[in-house]
Amino acid sequence: MSSERRLAKLESVIRHRQPDLTVILENIHDPHNVSAILRSCDAVGIMEVQLVYTTEEFPKLGKKSSASAKKWVDHRNFEGVSECFTKLHNEGYVVYATHLGKRTTPLYELDLTKKVALAFGNEHRGVSDEASELADGNFVIPMFGMIQSLNVSVACAVSLFEAVRQRMLAGRYDTASFDDKEVRKLMRKWATR
Amino acid sequence: MSSERRLAKLESVIRHRQPDLTVILENIHDPHNVSAILRSCDAVGIMEVQLVYTTEEFPKLGKKSSASAKKWVDHRNFEGVSECFTKLHNEGYVVYATHLGKRTTPLYELDLTKKVALAFGNEHRGVSDEASELADGNFVIPMFGMIQSLNVSVACAVSLFEAVRQRMLAGRYDTASFDDKEVRKLMRKWATR
Repeated sequence: MSSERRLAKLESVIRHRQPDLTVILENIHDPHNVSAILRSCDAVGIMEVQLVYTTEEFPKLGKKSSASAKKWVDHRNFEGVSECFTKLHNEGYVVYATHLGKRTTPLYELDLTKKVALAFGNEHRGVSDEASELADGNFVIPMFGMIQSLNVSVACAVSLFEAVRQRMLAGRYDTASFDDKEVRKLMRKWATR
Repeated sequence: MSSERRLAKLESVIRHRQPDLTVILENIHDPHNVSAILRSCDAVGIMEVQLVYTTEEFPKLGKKSSASAKKWVDHRNFEGVSECFTKLHNEGYVVYATHLGKRTTPLYELDLTKKVALAFGNEHRGVSDEASELADGNFVIPMFGMIQSLNVSVACAVSLFEAVRQRMLAGRYDTASFDDKEVRKLMRKWATR
């Protein structure tokens, strides 16, 4: 890609970024899943993901193209669930966790145009009880089959693209979240990646 | 699971099956992707997938739980794209392909409450030109990031759960597509799986 085209691409992507949408990854260990999740995050315009790795190491990602989304999606590390959720709440996020509890809302009934963080848990254990309890609400993707769960990267993508659908309807991809000065600053930062 | 609970589960799943929704898999070779796709198909209520494997073998699926969706989602093999699409058209399906061509509709503008088949292509090559041309339309999942494509199992899930959203709104999961006699027949068939 020519450097001019690359800059135009960077600018367009930055102008579509949604700084008021994020995901929390809690101990998701499979590198394929984490790669696919980061790829979905990049696609929907997430700037930064929140990492809570207390019982697992964050996986080493391969160098395949699907992993290169890591370059374009920043991350923030937390010591634990409580620290992460407190920080996000202080920043004004509403936090929803994918938990199959009693008070669970179907995905399609969430308002994902708000400043919102969606928490996804480990492949085997799901989100922790602590995350479920500290969240502002729990949600579930409606399912009608014999198998009880979706792959976590699939669940994350389905949730994020529901946010895309709602945000497109609300015109949230039509106007940048940053002013021109901030866009230029981000472009300088991204151009060196 | 007790045999009574299992029968109740089978009946519930059968009553939620959507025989007027299907996917076409064209030469998707990665077993993880095919397993994840079948799991999503089961979750949204697809009864049968359409397989067009002309340049690749249908992959051997592992025995992990994620692969067991194969047991609950039937498949039909075709010699080629043309044979498959002709059959589906004769059965009354509208066929959409995921192709980044000139005349491409955003996913969210498709009416997925119709009798509809969605075609997904090989991981590297996407759907063939033949499939794109024979389809009634091509669609794209809106994306706003640096990476140009989604993992195929993610793309399939995002599309199928948009169908779920539309069909839930239309009350399509509230009433079975089969009469009681057909439900009992399917239950007898499924009980032996």
